[in-house]
Amino acid sequence: MAEAGISWVRIGEFAWSRLEPSAGVFTFDWLDRAIEVLSNAGLKIILGTPTCTPPRRMLEQFPDMLALDAQGQPRKFGARRHYCFSHAGYRAASGRIAEILGDRYGRDTRIHGWQIDNEYGCHDTVLSYSDAARDAFRDWLAARYVTVEALNAAWGNVFWSMEYGDFDEIDLPNLTVTQPNPSHELAFRRFSSDQVVRYHEVQVAALRVRTDRPLIHNYMGRVLDFDHFEVGAALDIASWDSYPIGFLSDRLEASAAHKIRYLQQGDPDMQGFHHDLYRAVGKEGRWWVMEQQPGPVNWAPFNPAPLPGMVRLWSWEAFAHGAEVVSYFRWRQAPFAQEQMHAGLRRPDDAPAPGLAEVTQVAREIAQMPDIALQQAEVALIFDYPSEWAWTTLPQGQGFSYFALMLDAYRALRAQGLSIDILPSTVRDLSGYRLVLAPGLATLPDGLEAALTGAVTLIGPRANAVTPEISIPLPMGPNLAGLDVTVTQVETLPPQIARTVKGGGALHHWVETLEGTAQTSYETDNGQAVVKHTGNLHYLAGWPDATLWARLVADLAKQAGVNTREMPEGVRLRATQTHVFAFNYNAEAVAFDGVTIPPAGVHWWPV
Amino acid sequence: MAEAGISWVRIGEFAWSRLEPSAGVFTFDWLDRAIEVLSNAGLKIILGTPTCTPPRRMLEQFPDMLALDAQGQPRKFGARRHYCFSHAGYRAASGRIAEILGDRYGRDTRIHGWQIDNEYGCHDTVLSYSDAARDAFRDWLAARYVTVEALNAAWGNVFWSMEYGDFDEIDLPNLTVTQPNPSHELAFRRFSSDQVVRYHEVQVAALRVRTDRPLIHNYMGRVLDFDHFEVGAALDIASWDSYPIGFLSDRLEASAAHKIRYLQQGDPDMQGFHHDLYRAVGKEGRWWVMEQQPGPVNWAPFNPAPLPGMVRLWSWEAFAHGAEVVSYFRWRQAPFAQEQMHAGLRRPDDAPAPGLAEVTQVAREIAQMPDIALQQAEVALIFDYPSEWAWTTLPQGQGFSYFALMLDAYRALRAQGLSIDILPSTVRDLSGYRLVLAPGLATLPDGLEAALTGAVTLIGPRANAVTPEISIPLPMGPNLAGLDVTVTQVETLPPQIARTVKGGGALHHWVETLEGTAQTSYETDNGQAVVKHTGNLHYLAGWPDATLWARLVADLAKQAGVNTREMPEGVRLRATQTHVFAFNYNAEAVAFDGVTIPPAGVHWWPV
Amino acid sequence: MAEAGISWVRIGEFAWSRLEPSAGVFTFDWLDRAIEVLSNAGLKIILGTPTCTPPRRMLEQFPDMLALDAQGQPRKFGARRHYCFSHAGYRAASGRIAEILGDRYGRDTRIHGWQIDNEYGCHDTVLSYSDAARDAFRDWLAARYVTVEALNAAWGNVFWSMEYGDFDEIDLPNLTVTQPNPSHELAFRRFSSDQVVRYHEVQVAALRVRTDRPLIHNYMGRVLDFDHFEVGAALDIASWDSYPIGFLSDRLEASAAHKIRYLQQGDPDMQGFHHDLYRAVGKEGRWWVMEQQPGPVNWAPFNPAPLPGMVRLWSWEAFAHGAEVVSYFRWRQAPFAQEQMHAGLRRPDDAPAPGLAEVTQVAREIAQMPDIALQQAEVALIFDYPSEWAWTTLPQGQGFSYFALMLDAYRALRAQGLSIDILPSTVRDLSGYRLVLAPGLATLPDGLEAALTGAVTLIGPRANAVTPEISIPLPMGPNLAGLDVTVTQVETLPPQIARTVKGGGALHHWVETLEGTAQTSYETDNGQAVVKHTGNLHYLAGWPDATLWARLVADLAKQAGVNTREMPEGVRLRATQTHVFAFNYNAEAVAFDGVTIPPAGVHWWPV
Ligand SMILES: [Zn+2]
Ligand SMILES: [Zn+2]
Ligand SMILES: [Zn+2]
Repeated sequence: MAEAGISWVRIGEFAWSRLEPSAGVFTFDWLDRAIEVLSNAGLKIILGTPTCTPPRRMLEQFPDMLALDAQGQPRKFGARRHYCFSHAGYRAASGRIAEILGDRYGRDTRIHGWQIDNEYGCHDTVLSYSDAARDAFRDWLAARYVTVEALNAAWGNVFWSMEYGDFDEIDLPNLTVTQPNPSHELAFRRFSSDQVVRYHEVQVAALRVRTDRPLIHNYMGRVLDFDHFEVGAALDIASWDSYPIGFLSDRLEASAAHKIRYLQQGDPDMQGFHHDLYRAVGKEGRWWVMEQQPGPVNWAPFNPAPLPGMVRLWSWEAFAHGAEVVSYFRWRQAPFAQEQMHAGLRRPDDAPAPGLAEVTQVAREIAQMPDIALQQAEVALIFDYPSEWAWTTLPQGQGFSYFALMLDAYRALRAQGLSIDILPSTVRDLSGYRLVLAPGLATLPDGLEAALTGAVTLIGPRANAVTPEISIPLPMGPNLAGLDVTVTQVETLPPQIARTVKGGGALHHWVETLEGTAQTSYETDNGQAVVKHTGNLHYLAGWPDATLWARLVADLAKQAGVNTREMPEGVRLRATQTHVFAFNYNAEAVAFDGVTIPPAGVHWWPV
Repeated sequence: MAEAGISWVRIGEFAWSRLEPSAGVFTFDWLDRAIEVLSNAGLKIILGTPTCTPPRRMLEQFPDMLALDAQGQPRKFGARRHYCFSHAGYRAASGRIAEILGDRYGRDTRIHGWQIDNEYGCHDTVLSYSDAARDAFRDWLAARYVTVEALNAAWGNVFWSMEYGDFDEIDLPNLTVTQPNPSHELAFRRFSSDQVVRYHEVQVAALRVRTDRPLIHNYMGRVLDFDHFEVGAALDIASWDSYPIGFLSDRLEASAAHKIRYLQQGDPDMQGFHHDLYRAVGKEGRWWVMEQQPGPVNWAPFNPAPLPGMVRLWSWEAFAHGAEVVSYFRWRQAPFAQEQMHAGLRRPDDAPAPGLAEVTQVAREIAQMPDIALQQAEVALIFDYPSEWAWTTLPQGQGFSYFALMLDAYRALRAQGLSIDILPSTVRDLSGYRLVLAPGLATLPDGLEAALTGAVTLIGPRANAVTPEISIPLPMGPNLAGLDVTVTQVETLPPQIARTVKGGGALHHWVETLEGTAQTSYETDNGQAVVKHTGNLHYLAGWPDATLWARLVADLAKQAGVNTREMPEGVRLRATQTHVFAFNYNAEAVAFDGVTIPPAGVHWWPV
Repeated sequence: MAEAGISWVRIGEFAWSRLEPSAGVFTFDWLDRAIEVLSNAGLKIILGTPTCTPPRRMLEQFPDMLALDAQGQPRKFGARRHYCFSHAGYRAASGRIAEILGDRYGRDTRIHGWQIDNEYGCHDTVLSYSDAARDAFRDWLAARYVTVEALNAAWGNVFWSMEYGDFDEIDLPNLTVTQPNPSHELAFRRFSSDQVVRYHEVQVAALRVRTDRPLIHNYMGRVLDFDHFEVGAALDIASWDSYPIGFLSDRLEASAAHKIRYLQQGDPDMQGFHHDLYRAVGKEGRWWVMEQQPGPVNWAPFNPAPLPGMVRLWSWEAFAHGAEVVSYFRWRQAPFAQEQMHAGLRRPDDAPAPGLAEVTQVAREIAQMPDIALQQAEVALIFDYPSEWAWTTLPQGQGFSYFALMLDAYRALRAQGLSIDILPSTVRDLSGYRLVLAPGLATLPDGLEAALTGAVTLIGPRANAVTPEISIPLPMGPNLAGLDVTVTQVETLPPQIARTVKGGGALHHWVETLEGTAQTSYETDNGQAVVKHTGNLHYLAGWPDATLWARLVADLAKQAGVNTREMPEGVRLRATQTHVFAFNYNAEAVAFDGVTIPPAGVHWWPV
């Protein structure tokens, strides 16, 4: 590995059955040998806690530890992530194995970091409808609302006679005859996120006192069922597992043409978005790519190979966004079990796989580069997990997705050549940002609006539209100080329909009717306000298509004194203190700024 | 409300948890106050029984009262309609709350009518696979067949050794390895409809002796799992909940182009069809619209706003079809719970919503109009719930739908400018009708054929094709006296395929082969008979497309001496004793008969 | 029947409730009478064991005999095939009824053959997730692996800590959080097939000692969940139920255009494929069509009538492929129960249905024909059920299907006018074959490669790609002696994408990267090897489209000295010792070889 320029290696994350072959009996010799060998080869080791794969025997001890799906079916042993976050016994057992590993390896200088569990939420594992979850939910509700009368009032349970007489009468919001009360469902989603945090913090507590090395978790792409900022708060480094081709295939809304165009490259904005998001999740911006796709994988609907050059491009893009480390998954393709068709940097027969040469090249190039020095972006985008839960709970139109709206906004900014910081909705210091976007932010938290005043700001659509309990606020939203705008009606539109906007572009999916004295800066062809603003504060009344997004971003950036440039399709920029990087996601060369960037190519200029 | 010309208001239909906050403890004071306030405001009150929303506590008393879905999953508390119609305990509890309300308010002169329960069958709640349903089904079977041998014979259980030795061996027809015996499934559907009637009549009995005011139920659009004529027989007034835009989106087979064209108007025939259907369901033709969509709703796949003018158009269309009352749902948008995004006539902040002005205009216009006086139509269409169950049980081709066939026939008649009476298959006096259509009528009941002789009649396709037990009759159908026609073969076709007919149009979906000496009046391009007739009696051997329907209706009407006129697309007529009304469902103005009807406009001429 | 030229009739196969109306009480009088009548009419009788339809009472005795689906739901009584193959009690009861029938009718000279059960696997009934299956699976595993450590090693259970401590810890591979270990799933599929064989052999044993008449089973089309070669090994004659129009509609991947083109004819290769497959399954090549579709059926998504001529065409095609008997299902359309809309040769009212005249014609024509004398084909295609299970377990790309790949290969051969023998992968004598194809053969069994050397051979794609336990072999496949080729990477492609090949055609779905010194005979436009060969042995690195298949087959046949001719679309040939038959599946006449074959027509030439 070291020859390939690889300096970090992760081990142990699925190894519980080997670490503790029978209850209380530990076999560390194989792990000790592995640590010795890898360390002698010059590699820095990340040790993973194996809690994502409890051994079969654990089910004898805790027969009720499995999650149940929304249909009430157990999610059985035989793969991974077969546990309910609310199961107290398994939570304690997870803390215990972390303690045992911490006791033995916490001060081992060859262990340079710790990964806790693996890919929380992968395979839709956050929401569980088990008895353990139900009981914990009742406790959580009692703690939050204190009295059941307060809960009834907060949820509006008088509607349809849904009032409860006692917390113990409250069930999980699955299998209801029709839609459950959105307040009920949102509470369950908040609870479920909290249960991940609670589960997680037991292991953090176990390790924190046993090691000084950084604690890390490897998040996934577009897993939104728990609040990553809250999990990340207890960690030192955020990392994520980046599978550009798999994700384009299995978790992105996109036209068939887009999916074909980027089949062997991945979506041009999906990686950058997550890089910027996880930079915000990491403490002081520290983040890694823990697993970088190095070739065809096994789990997407279709699994083509990356175009030659893409492994290098993805790696460089991560570094340009500030990754400290890019690690590849996996080193050698395993010839058996579920991931036997998941490429590694080496083939099952240990010969080099195509990705390895690119990785080696990146390592060489990086070595010749001064360290990447990040700079604060001029543009900020606010990302908020509870907004995702709110709109999943109450989409109002088929397929309304907060994430998709955010990715659209991010894509629009990048299509104008901008670098972006993603920020949590808990941010209160926005100094230095010239332009801030907060689309779809369900509820503006106290203090955020005050912090926004320095920059040109775009709020909406669907922003500050509900209370934290998901009801309509009175007076009705967005209730922005200094901007006389009220959303009086909402419409959702099928995909084939759009409301065209004077001057070009259109609203689709989601359209609001505005009332108020603020100035109208965009309107539809039939005279409906699309953007209203007063001074720097703009409210957007719908979901723009790409053309309208481009106009909006260009206009707002101009007002904010931020330079933009329209990028060729599939080409993206990223500016650091010292360089500007360009990434060509196309399968064809693109002429840009006096150079020709090859297909799947990277180019950088010193500033 | 009264200022808006609204004179009726419905209350109480979901209020059980407030009426009886704990078992046997009633709080009427809030309701008394509401009645006082509304009555003082000049409003006539409909009081609803709250049985559609049993309170949470009811589940302690009757843990087995929930319906189970076909997969055996409980349909849980947390929304509404969470009860199985077959649960005897809950049925009695429903009667008891009706008695208590009747005792207190039955003679209260401010209560002008009673709504029993709410939207039977909404959210697919008629078919339940609970133990209560299974036990009641066995009793129902024993009462119907007397001996299990008779049942075995009637169902043809010798086929595949499905014979039963005892009624207690008979299970519900879900989860079978492949299709269950259609006789078994049809029996279950008949039973399930009967259980709705039985459940319903307990409340009718409770109220009938306690009040002289009319009893009403509010039916839904395209809910077909119970026989509305049988529920309606015990009531004084039929009403329905008309959501034209929601229904176009969520429950109509239509091309994408059709759904786009009428996105903000609703299908031009769906409302008229239900108006005419529920006029037949109501005693002596008395019917209302209990809930008229006044703006965007929350529950359809997409929820756009009605075009300006549509709320007025829908209201006038209802009146022209004979509605005594059109009520709007809801008065004020509730800012919480499931329907927080369901528009009202007033916004959540109590400001007027766009629909309110149109409602006020209709009230003004109505006040200037002499009362609508209906007249018997020249054309009748026979609608039969058991036929829907029969063809759902045995579709023979993917997506065969009795309702869709009926709506197609209705649409074809209206496209020729006709007004229509819909009649149940129990009708025996058809005097006054010149043209009668009975497509898809699974079994012609005794006596109906005799009643048909006065008019030009079109029977078929798939009419009198099975026995009441859903087997093929011998001799084979349609077995019409005076018409020598036998259906010897049936074919179902995928959507892309049709059999073209000489002179224009085609058969799609369903094609029969006919034999017999009756005269052939239409035939396919390759010589297959499409219509055969003798005198006034015509048999139709397939499902016509719109072109063929237009030809058929024009020819039959001519034979019947009924005047037709080809209507512009999206424009519909309705004739009363005093006026002819025209409704323009298009988003563009249409010139018609010397006037220009604006988009979403209504025009009327005195006769 | 005899007048129609029909000489065989099958009875009894669903009649258990009449044979044994209560436990241990048998009524044979009706069966005796039926045998008498049919025999007197000159018909030879096949008697079926009724085990596909256990009577309701059996469930009292064995409440746990039902199969469970993958969701854990029982597959209930009320149709047919409601039993789990692993239930020991029901297996014994099935043997017992076979014994009783054998005792009574085994030596009855009027009974000319026996059908055991009916359509094993129909309605997805092979895989069951019942307790009986789980317990039997554990026993099967213990027998196969002896120690659980051996199982853990064979499956690679160290991956994700899936190791077991005891066979009793192993559950069935359903409801896992994500994909189960493919070794686990493949073992379950092998086991499930073995359970069919085990169930089947109990009845074989019961009858074998009681009769000298041939034992038969009627297989279905594209039922692949059990190994037909293994079931067939204990039988004398293979038969199958051929529903060309239903199968095209419900179980074939094909473009919409293809499905429309052959809507009333069926796919031109589906019948031939199964004829050739079941000829290989039958002992010494003896096979029948037990049920031939004679008109519209009831169970497909759409059920049109066969074009005039098709019943004759299908019959002749079966005879040309060597069928001893073609029987039609059903004789008379039953007017009740599930199949009341399934056409027969006679209508429900006993009048002749359209198919009858064609059947009579075939009988007349056959009588004038010398017996069909088969000859060994020049071309062999190897078909292997475990390969189907392997690739269903690990498709790697959405919709990868071994069967579809095989049918594509078969279609390509037939499109060049070839007659084909299908052979099991257990074949070791390939003498006489000039060209052998083995695409998709998961694991080459020992000895097969040696047997291949005589012929021009095409292996791949995805051949010899895994071990029998479904892991990647080391060295990596295909590991062919005398052919230096290694598959180093695999890609799966979405349907819209293909890799074009120099000279015409393309690879789609599946593309492999090859390494090795063998000669490249085809390559993609960007230089990737598509076929590599040394001498007679060719390896194919992907899934060809029709154009590439045509080139490949023509080239390989030329190398093998086999004559080909490009057939008109929809026309197929079949050569016997004495004749060449041509079948025109088109709805239009086709000129071929100096004759005009009418739509749905058959032509034959003496050799
Ligand atoms: Zn991973
Ligand atoms: Zn309603
Ligand atoms: Zn069959």
